[in-house]
Parts: sequence; C-alpha cells; structure tokens
Amino acid sequence: MLQVIPLGGLGEIGLNSLVIACNGEMLLIDAGLMFPSDGMPGVDIIIPDFTHLKQNAAQLKGVLLTHGHEDHLGALPYLLSELSVPIPVYGTRFTLAMARHRLDELGVEADLREIEPREPFPVGSMFKVEASRVTHTVPDAVGFIVRTPEGTLIHTGDFKLDPDPIDGLRTDLERWGEAGDEGVVCLLSDSTNSELTEETGSERVVEQTFERLFRDATGRIVVALFSSNLHRVRHLLALAERLGRKVALQGRSMLRNVEMARQLGYLDVPDSLFVPLDTVPILPAQRVLVLTTGAQGEPRAGLSQLASGDGPLKVGPGDLVVLSSRPIPGNERGVGALIDQLHWRGARVAYAQIEPGVHVSGHASRPQQKRVLELVRPRHFIPVHGEGRHLHRHLATAREAGLEPAQCLLAQDGDIVGFEEGRGRFTGSVTSGRIFKDRFGGGMVTSDTLHERVRLSETGLVAAVVVIQRDTLKLVGGPQLSGQGLSVDEQVLLPRVAQEARTLFEELSVQLRGDDALVREELTRVVRRAFRLYTSKRPLVVPMVVRV
Amino acid sequence: MLQVIPLGGLGEIGLNSLVIACNGEMLLIDAGLMFPSDGMPGVDIIIPDFTHLKQNAAQLKGVLLTHGHEDHLGALPYLLSELSVPIPVYGTRFTLAMARHRLDELGVEADLREIEPREPFPVGSMFKVEASRVTHTVPDAVGFIVRTPEGTLIHTGDFKLDPDPIDGLRTDLERWGEAGDEGVVCLLSDSTNSELTEETGSERVVEQTFERLFRDATGRIVVALFSSNLHRVRHLLALAERLGRKVALQGRSMLRNVEMARQLGYLDVPDSLFVPLDTVPILPAQRVLVLTTGAQGEPRAGLSQLASGDGPLKVGPGDLVVLSSRPIPGNERGVGALIDQLHWRGARVAYAQIEPGVHVSGHASRPQQKRVLELVRPRHFIPVHGEGRHLHRHLATAREAGLEPAQCLLAQDGDIVGFEEGRGRFTGSVTSGRIFKDRFGGGMVTSDTLHERVRLSETGLVAAVVVIQRDTLKLVGGPQLSGQGLSVDEQVLLPRVAQEARTLFEELSVQLRGDDALVREELTRVVRRAFRLYTSKRPLVVPMVVRV
Repeated sequence: MLQVIPLGGLGEIGLNSLVIACNGEMLLIDAGLMFPSDGMPGVDIIIPDFTHLKQNAAQLKGVLLTHGHEDHLGALPYLLSELSVPIPVYGTRFTLAMARHRLDELGVEADLREIEPREPFPVGSMFKVEASRVTHTVPDAVGFIVRTPEGTLIHTGDFKLDPDPIDGLRTDLERWGEAGDEGVVCLLSDSTNSELTEETGSERVVEQTFERLFRDATGRIVVALFSSNLHRVRHLLALAERLGRKVALQGRSMLRNVEMARQLGYLDVPDSLFVPLDTVPILPAQRVLVLTTGAQGEPRAGLSQLASGDGPLKVGPGDLVVLSSRPIPGNERGVGALIDQLHWRGARVAYAQIEPGVHVSGHASRPQQKRVLELVRPRHFIPVHGEGRHLHRHLATAREAGLEPAQCLLAQDGDIVGFEEGRGRFTGSVTSGRIFKDRFGGGMVTSDTLHERVRLSETGLVAAVVVIQRDTLKLVGGPQLSGQGLSVDEQVLLPRVAQEARTLFEELSVQLRGDDALVREELTRVVRRAFRLYTSKRPLVVPMVVRV
Repeated sequence: MLQVIPLGGLGEIGLNSLVIACNGEMLLIDAGLMFPSDGMPGVDIIIPDFTHLKQNAAQLKGVLLTHGHEDHLGALPYLLSELSVPIPVYGTRFTLAMARHRLDELGVEADLREIEPREPFPVGSMFKVEASRVTHTVPDAVGFIVRTPEGTLIHTGDFKLDPDPIDGLRTDLERWGEAGDEGVVCLLSDSTNSELTEETGSERVVEQTFERLFRDATGRIVVALFSSNLHRVRHLLALAERLGRKVALQGRSMLRNVEMARQLGYLDVPDSLFVPLDTVPILPAQRVLVLTTGAQGEPRAGLSQLASGDGPLKVGPGDLVVLSSRPIPGNERGVGALIDQLHWRGARVAYAQIEPGVHVSGHASRPQQKRVLELVRPRHFIPVHGEGRHLHRHLATAREAGLEPAQCLLAQDGDIVGFEEGRGRFTGSVTSGRIFKDRFGGGMVTSDTLHERVRLSETGLVAAVVVIQRDTLKLVGGPQLSGQGLSVDEQVLLPRVAQEARTLFEELSVQLRGDDALVREELTRVVRRAFRLYTSKRPLVVPMVVRV
C-alpha cells in the first residue's frame, strides 16, 4: 500500500511538507514554513501541524530536502525538536548548509546526510531515492524520484526550465523521462506559476537587463534581491568586476549567504572585489554597486533603510536603484510605498512593473508544466505547491496534456491519497493545519487569540475594574475605566460612561457579588450598555474584580 | 495670481481634492475619500484634512465634481458639514445623484447644481468653468476647463480614451485641443495607469469576452463587478436579454445603482428582464444571470456570501463565476482566497489573471496620457491622481512628449503651485493630511491611537490593577493581572508573573504611592520586568490604580 499525504503546501504558497508512506514506513519531503499575512498580528512564522508525524515517529525513516528556501526547510528545527527519535535528513551540499544555519539558530541537533543528484540511496527498507537536479533561484536544488515496492513517484520540488542557466545546471528532464518510461505511479509537480501562460524566462534575460541598465548608470547602483538567489548574485558580481565597480553587501542574510556560497565554491570571485558598506559614502559614486535585501518592502531590511535615510548610507539624485523581484501577493502596497520613497529621494528606480527584465520567476509556467506532464506521462498526477486556484489550474493543464479525470487527484493538506493495483483514490485524512508561532520566543498563538487580537486592534479596549470587600460584599471601588486604542470621541466619553456604569453596577444584588465570574460578566454588560448610550462603536471590555 | 493647491490625491490613489485659487477666490475640484489599508485597524474611511478650506471658507465659491466615485465625492458630506457657509456643488446629472445619496446617508444638506458638458458657467467672479465629457467606468464623468483672468487650466478628472464606448460618449479631446490652441497655463492629468505601456482597451473587449464565456456556459452565471460600472451592467443586461437569461441583482449598492440608472434613463431595459434573487434557486440554472458585488474580495459583499455558502444562494459544479475586475493593490490576497473558495465549491471561475478580457481599466495608460499632453501642449503640467511612482512616471512621459523640466511640476498634497507671468513654481504650502474616521460613528482616530492599536494586536496586553488604601497608602489588593491576546505560553506564565510583580511592587516606597501617575509607571515597570524573566515578548501593560 502506497500513500501520499500532504501536510502543507496544497492550499497555500509555503508550508511545503509531504509524506510518502509505504508498507508501514514513511518519508517526508520538505518541512517548510510560511510567513504570516494580515489578520495574524504578532505571529512571526507559521509551521505545519506535525501531529501525524509525532504520532508515527517510529515509521518516519528520513526527511528529504528539495532546496534551501525557508518555505521548504524552515520548519525543520521545530519538527526535529518535537520528534522523540533522531531522523536522518538528506539534502545536497548547499541545501544542508542552509538547513544547518536554521538548526543552529534554534540550537537543534540533526543527522544531516549529503546527497548527490543521480546517486540513488536507500531510506528505510521501502524507499530507494534519487535526487534529480532542477533549476531554481537557489543553487543545488533538486526534485526526487522515489522508488518503492508499490511503484515510483516523482516529486519535482520547485523548478523552472531554463535552457541556459547561470550555473549551467539544467533541470534533469532526461532522468524524469527515463523514470516515465519505466512507469510512474504519481507525479507531484510545482503549481506556483500555473496561472501564467507565457514561458518563464531565462535568468539570462535579467543578466542582459542589468548589463543595459548598468552601462547607462553614472552614479551609485543599488540592487535589492533575495540573498539566496546566488545565481543572480553571481552574474551581478561578474558584471561589477567587468565595469570596474566595487561591491558592498548590505543585510545580514546577504553577507551570510554570499560568504557561504564562496566557501562552498558556488561563487568564485576575488576578495578585492568587495568593499565594506561603510566605505561606500567616500568612494566615487560611479565605482560602487550595493547588493542589498528588502526588495519585498520588509520594513527593517536594507532597502528600506536606504530609502528612509535612517542608515549611514542614503540614496539620492543620480543613483540607480533596482528592485530585482516581483512583489509576493500581499506585499504590493509595501513595495509600492518603498518605490515611492526612493523616487521622492530623487533616485532613478527600476522595478518589474516598468522594467520587466529585472526579474524572472524561479517556477515553470503553464506550457512548461505541460511539457513535464507530457514527458513523464504518469498514471496519476497531484498538483502541489500552490493555493487552491493554482492547483485547479494545474489540473486543467494536466487534462489538456491528455490525462483522464480519474488520473488527476486534487488533494489538499491532510488528505490521504492511496494507490492500490495501479489506482489512486482518496482513502481518508490525517490531522493537519497551521501552527502560529513566535520565532524565537517560541510561543504558540491559537486562532482564537488571533481573533481576539484583531478585534482588539479594530475597536480598542476598555479595562474595567471593581473592588469588592470580601466580608460585606460591599462595592468599595470602581467601576474604574481605562481605555486603550479608543477613538478621540470614545476617549472623551470615558468619564461619563464610568459614571453611568457605576449607577448600573450598584443595582447588582449583593448576593451575586460573591461570584467573580458573575461580577465580571455584569461589569462587561454595564460598561457596554453605558457605551451604547453615546456611540455605536463597541470597544472590547476587559473586566477585573479585586477583593480586599 | 493663480494657484493650484492639491489637498489629496497627489501621493495616493484616492482622497482626490484640489483647490484652484485666483485673486482671493477658490474653487475645489472633487472631495474624495480613501479606504484604509493594513495598519489602520478600525478605520472605516480616510478623508483629506480640509483645514485650509475651513480657514478660508469665505473665499470658496464652489465645489466641482468630476464623477460619481467615492474617491472623488465621498468626503463631500464631511466637508460641507464642517464649513460654516453653504457652498454650491456643481456636477452632471448622474454624478449629483450619487452625491445626493452620500449626503442623505449622513443627513447633510447641499446646494446641488446640475451642469452639462460644453455649457460654460461662472463660479464666483474669477472662474468660468466648462465641463468636458470623459469616458470612465461610471456614466456622466467629466473633466474641467477652468478659465481665469490669469489663464486657463485643464483638469482631466479620471479618464480613458475608448474609441467605441458603450454609451457612445467619447472623451472630448476636441475641446481640450481647442483650449490648448488658445493656450493652457497648466494641465492636471490622471496618473493612475502611468506605469502601463499597453493602451488601455475598449469596454468592447469585455463585451466580447462575456459573449464568448456566456455562450459556453450551461449552468448559472454569476458576474461580480463594481455596481457603479453601469456601462458594463448595460452590456451585461443586453447580453442576458439576447441569450434568454433572467437577471437577479445581489447587493444593496447593485440594486440602488441599477435603479438610479434606470430612473435617470441610463439603462433602458424592461422590468420583465429581472427576477428577485430568492427565486434563483428555483429557476433553471441555464436561464439565470446573477449580477453581484464584492469582486475585490470584500468579506461581507455578495460574492463572498455566494462563495462561503452563507446565504440562500450557493454556487457549485456547473456554474460559471466571473470576477470582472482587477484586484486593487492590497486586495490581492483576499481576492485570491475568494477565487480559491469558489474553485473548491466546484464552480468554473474566470478572472483577470487567466482571462484578461473580463476587465479593462477606466484609466488612460502611458501612450494615451502622452497623446493628451501632445494635444494640449500646456505651458505647465502637474500629474495628479496617483501614488509617488505614478506621478513620477507620468512626469517622465511629459518629458518624452517634449515638455522641458521647468514646465513639469511634481507637486504633492499641501503644496502651493503659483503661476505668475506665465511661470509656475512652488510658492509655499498649506495644512494637509489624512483624517481617519469611523464612517457612521463619526469618531476620529489619531495616528497615535492607530500605532497603539497595531501594537495591541501584535503583542496582546496585560491589564494590571493595584488597590491602595487612601489614608494609610497600604497596598490592599493586587497587582492583579488579566491578559488579552496573549500567546499560550504567556497566558500560562501569568500567575507567576503576578506573584513576581507583587514582590517587586511591595518594594515601592510608601510615600510614592500617593501619586497615581507614579504608581502606574511603577506598576508597568514591574509587570514588564517580571515578564522578561520568562520570555522575550513584551505585552503592552495597561496599569490601573484604585483607591479605597
């Protein structure tokens, strides 16, 4: 009995985590996190609910990592620290270096095992795994061919089809095709770009765009990009060298990733190319390239500092700033505000909306997804890595590629898809969901608390306290009110509301005053009622009883 | 002395409001509002700071409305009710009907004066105004040619260039060209789409797309669109009639706007075309078209109800749902989630990302903006209606159209641009800004309060109370703590923190206990310190002192 059980990533971008189970053994592909959107105040990260793995820890024989992005390995430390048994973690060299950094940050030990593409290795006794090289926006990314006694699966990981990638390492379509010829029970393929009908371009497009923009630039150049996109860093460094510009790195992750890539041999550039960031103000403007983080408008990242002028380095007239990314959905307003700020400082700003070549995606689009489907000709297909509409769209592509409805399985997080006698079907479900966490504080935040927080922020609150004498049950103090986050009008009303509440509260029969819960309930009621006399808004009431 | 003083809309999308002043008289073009984005919890609307108008109310001779959208007339009731003198408001028939609705909602009286395009009228003694027809997404939209003793200005309003609009009424380029021939001191032109290089398409594209989609549809059809886009409603109704589908309207604004348009003669359709929404479930699916609101993902609007299945009407397999709009920046995630939900219900969903023809914009794009610049050949140009990058981009277009740098004036809200002897320059500034409001409660929310609310939502809070005896200054109760919006770990910690705080608080010297402010300060300090012993998170503390 072969099963596929997605724990995350099928219904959202991020949180990627998927179980393959066979005859009492499991392996996990990726353990990704997700960053919060609006409506999740105070949440730093979201991780998948790993209950199913914790309850079946003895069956879990290994974790396979596809690549070094947080949405694929960021939840690894949390998973490993919650499991009672040590589990081997398999990944390529660069991917493991990224994983090690995350693990070290949280002080979690792990059994990391380096793998090479095209070199099969066993996981447990049921799985024979082979990594296949894919092109993505981080070095050393792979997909997996998983062979089991019940058949072979292909998981593409995040991939794009770039005929001429910067590092020369193309997505290994050859091996996927060969596995397809042998017969693939199920293909699990990246859906991120399934809404896009235009072929995802080559990174060479970005290289050429930079070449053109840089040649015209007479002042400083600042490029903001994801620091893990070391292919892009690579051609930017080469271009800087060619044009005689020194490179300054800004942002902790930029410094760390470039250093890591140089150590591992992914970047071959001389030390003399780099200058410290604090020397930039004294160097001739036309001799400097700054690589920085924060192209998604992150408030504390490098580019925001440059735009706000808070740091030692500022941008101004004559400077060229390039945002080498596309806003992730939800970030549009923040990125827009950042671009505005850079404009008002007088800089020339190149960004995807007006200069499309400053960024290409790391994910295959519709026609390329179709090519993979046609190449592998799997018996079944499960679209992975996407929100609902991306998965649905990818499924439509599979239909166009000739798959029958029964071959296309639209799974969601927590579904169990079982394959028996060559037929796949939904056979049940496991616990799944999203756990909201403080990254370092480690605190868990329930969804009830999130609702409470959102409500707090929308209405503000009134803390209300009464003091009751223990023996006599006499009201000796309050109701006294204190407001937070109230509108000007509500704040002005507060003394009148307090007086009203006092009158109302005194009517509460003395007997009932013995019960804290009853008193709190009544206190809430009278404060609300007093508010309603004056305004239609209803702040949250936090009732307190002190007995003296 | 001629002046242009933008109060809103130059630095944001929305809030459009601009003063033209001449020799001691002023007129205002539009009084728009803006809807809040993230980071403004509990705010319903934002209006411009009208201080400058209030302080100079006697000089204000009239308000001109370009069209019926909220971002152009939604702040009118607030402005009029704050002015001590009655001011005439000029607009076309449909625009005044929209304005009257807003005014009635808030119980504000106004002196509304209907105008016709190409029929000049005086405002005060300094202004001779002529409305010129523009094509936009609402009927009866205009721009203004304002003639003064110091020269002529053209304000385009929101406009697009559609060679074949649904109502046959094209943007009156002829009059703008004639005014240009006479000489225009300053052109103020819509910048919304200045990032787009492709020509904004004709509404006929949408008409053809619907025709194609509808012909293939075998079940119910639901189209979500802005209810004020009555051009689109018009061709949808015609198509429904042709295809033998009855039309049900969902959403209060949809019902109201369609009724208003029928009364004013903008929609000529028989009563028999319509059916009440509650009859839809009993009608044959292929005989129904539902027009609804909420294409921007608004949580309580029609489309969300259909998607969640909360209402009497649900969508399901076989139904076609069309989102006839593009997400406004900031709404992408909400719209995406809505599309996902519709997919999971089994409906076929057509939306701009995969079916671009379901929507065209109501604003001219770069080449069309350029055409207007070349036609008018103004002495000066001020880009209006846009965030910073839109204004900057529009300025770049003006340079390409042949204007010299000194002719291009990049103004922001609050700037005074003066024109003297044919030269325009920045001469000062007036009070400007954004006022955050509850729509009906009417309460004003300060930006400090907004920061407090955001902070509340990110950390949660701990209300802390102590009871002190008046005479002896003895601590007779507390510190007692109550948490709201805390993480699970913090909630668990609360009793320990309270105990710690008690120990710490008792050290506060008795003399200091006489001062409420000091006690509150100390209480906050000890609660924070106690928290820090256990966690790195710092909830907001609301300190209270009760004296008995």
